[in-house]
Amino acid sequence: MNTTPETVTAAILVIGDEILSGRTKDRNIGYIAEYLTALGIDTKEVRVVPDEEDEIVTALNALRGRYDYVFTTGGIGPTHDDITADCIAKAFGVDISVNAQARAMLLERIAEKDLNEARLRMARIPHGAELIENPVSKAPGFMIGNVITMAGVPSVMQAMMDVVSPRLRTGVKMIQVSIEAAGLKEGDIGSEYGTIAKAHPGVIMGSYPMMQEGRFWTRLVLRAKDAGLLAAAEKDVVAMVEQNKPPQSQIVITRPEA
Amino acid sequence: MNTTPETVTAAILVIGDEILSGRTKDRNIGYIAEYLTALGIDTKEVRVVPDEEDEIVTALNALRGRYDYVFTTGGIGPTHDDITADCIAKAFGVDISVNAQARAMLLERIAEKDLNEARLRMARIPHGAELIENPVSKAPGFMIGNVITMAGVPSVMQAMMDVVSPRLRTGVKMIQVSIEAAGLKEGDIGSEYGTIAKAHPGVIMGSYPMMQEGRFWTRLVLRAKDAGLLAAAEKDVVAMVEQNKPPQSQIVITRPEA
Repeated sequence: MNTTPETVTAAILVIGDEILSGRTKDRNIGYIAEYLTALGIDTKEVRVVPDEEDEIVTALNALRGRYDYVFTTGGIGPTHDDITADCIAKAFGVDISVNAQARAMLLERIAEKDLNEARLRMARIPHGAELIENPVSKAPGFMIGNVITMAGVPSVMQAMMDVVSPRLRTGVKMIQVSIEAAGLKEGDIGSEYGTIAKAHPGVIMGSYPMMQEGRFWTRLVLRAKDAGLLAAAEKDVVAMVEQNKPPQSQIVITRPEA
Repeated sequence: MNTTPETVTAAILVIGDEILSGRTKDRNIGYIAEYLTALGIDTKEVRVVPDEEDEIVTALNALRGRYDYVFTTGGIGPTHDDITADCIAKAFGVDISVNAQARAMLLERIAEKDLNEARLRMARIPHGAELIENPVSKAPGFMIGNVITMAGVPSVMQAMMDVVSPRLRTGVKMIQVSIEAAGLKEGDIGSEYGTIAKAHPGVIMGSYPMMQEGRFWTRLVLRAKDAGLLAAAEKDVVAMVEQNKPPQSQIVITRPEA
């Protein structure tokens, strides 16, 4: 649950044996996390679980009780291993059955004679859920309570994010500034940077070492919801980097667009 | 903990605000999962948590009590936000201090005069842990109990996996066969495939729809630890695909090397 009125939190729950076996490489976590950051929703946790009812229900209940939103991906297709919708119904203690509106959506793509039992699985929706239209392949996702259930196929999931995002409550966006310099070594500045971080508790300060253009390079990333707090921390960090970077190296300051 | 003598399980714990914000896209989960599958270790769960002590310790204790191994990535560098080693010491209830052997490893790359407090953080190791050599940048990972702690930088993490893997207990490897055909539609075979899956409880049967060469395509993936069980399920699935694929389409059977 959210801690202040301006903060909206989320978790991502990826469902699928194929991710855990490594056979399929997940492309959804990073996409959703970046998307939510841009909306002003802070992703606080991610879990990946197998196609097993107990695992899905347990993770879902842990996450939906703790965060403002839970985004699930995977397990809403037509085969026996697609059990996400049933697990969500179970977690919420509601019934599940074929939803007339979801069935009509399937019929936009599938001829009625081909709408067999397997395909109709994709129209089984927990009672009380609101559908999320799928412009790519029609079989809808859905939202029930604070849980948003989407497809695992990246192109379909991405389309569903666009459909559902206007319905979401969003918080104050994190603003960010990156400060970096060629030849700046993380180990040289670690202590001073830590002292600055302690002096600016409202700013989240990360440090990411890189090898770039054949030399060490450190990117310092400062994030805050308050522009004044961010600017004050930035000033201290820039002064510290100025003193620690090689003389000929330029400080590069980047502000991603809000 | 493992359920049968032949099964060894693992969880992956990714530590880092930069993954949750989406600024950095994780490349470690898929690598480790695939690596462990090849070794005969089954990844059963993944979690991503922020650089916050309570979150890391709670996730670590939940996972290490439940699986044979826990692999962590991230948070072992020289800056204030690198708190993984301290969190692991806390989770195990052991002290942490500069380890002489780890310090000697750092000195292979860093001049003694540059070995300041920040860099020495990378030699702080929980008591009782065994070091994991880092051939790339020297700062070691470590293993304590059933927890393996590695760097977040993919090249370093990958080198550490190679160092630590001979020390791991491994189970019977999953063997796998993929059966696919152009024009085979998941929705056409969902019910029959589910019936076959029920008849072969020792075989994990997945189904992955694709768009390929401009048409629907379905890959059925069968996995088992027993070659006889796998062969029996494969026979039934091939017969079912034969009846449902378009007449001119070829069944493609792929067996990844063990």
